[in-house]
Amino acid sequence: MEIERKYLVDKVPESLDDYSHVEIEQCYLCTSPTVRVRRMGDVYILTIKEKVAKGKEGEAIHNREEEFLLTAESYERLKSKSEGSAVLKTRYRIPLECGLTAELDLFHGAHEGLRLVEVEFPDTESSESFIPPVWFGKEVSDDRRYRNSWLAFNG
Amino acid sequence: MEIERKYLVDKVPESLDDYSHVEIEQCYLCTSPTVRVRRMGDVYILTIKEKVAKGKEGEAIHNREEEFLLTAESYERLKSKSEGSAVLKTRYRIPLECGLTAELDLFHGAHEGLRLVEVEFPDTESSESFIPPVWFGKEVSDDRRYRNSWLAFNG
Repeated sequence: MEIERKYLVDKVPESLDDYSHVEIEQCYLCTSPTVRVRRMGDVYILTIKEKVAKGKEGEAIHNREEEFLLTAESYERLKSKSEGSAVLKTRYRIPLECGLTAELDLFHGAHEGLRLVEVEFPDTESSESFIPPVWFGKEVSDDRRYRNSWLAFNG
Repeated sequence: MEIERKYLVDKVPESLDDYSHVEIEQCYLCTSPTVRVRRMGDVYILTIKEKVAKGKEGEAIHNREEEFLLTAESYERLKSKSEGSAVLKTRYRIPLECGLTAELDLFHGAHEGLRLVEVEFPDTESSESFIPPVWFGKEVSDDRRYRNSWLAFNG
């Protein structure tokens, strides 16, 4: 189960190119469950994300996420079956003072100018006690308009 | 990891309809990894099968298989992106004297007349010591021409 929080970006950190970064292209074949193919540099990945309701009625829903390596050929084949438009972004990995890592996404193409930053937490406690750095903007964790799958279909 | 053996069928057991059975339709979007959508009665499933090489060089390759529930709508959407032809079959679950269950597939459509039977084992020992019932035919576990994904592309 992934515990993540997502924010807009007020001010991009300086000297961005000093941080490790990778070009990402991702496309969607289905959104329920999410069937996504992603190219990160020269690595190709198929990801399936499924909402799983566990236990008794009313219990929290969590997400199951499984990844599979693709060859470049399989990636291109599955990409050709995708819907919406490809989401293009550069992802920077920026270490935070708290010891966690921020993933800053600068979008290109249809969403040029959009900037989102995400932090993944090891547990609920660290997620709830997280104090965002000053360069983070408004939190949009629950705003579906900032989901990448939404962006793919609203380019 | 699945441990299975697959056989042709010399003689179909009598009174087949007394055994529980289900109509199966399955289609393939990709074969490396295998991306399969399957309808079993009114249940729709997305399955990804990946060959995983574990540990040091020369160690056995095993298969990773993950399943995800689909809605009927997602099934139809993904099916429309499939390649080759749909594989159609009726699957009968037949209890064996050894306590295991044989899955007998009678194919329809492009492969009408083909009959395959498969047994899944809890461990390697029971797989290796398995004595097939007399109605089982030649073993085809390692014959890729009897893989369902091969059948989909050779209808």
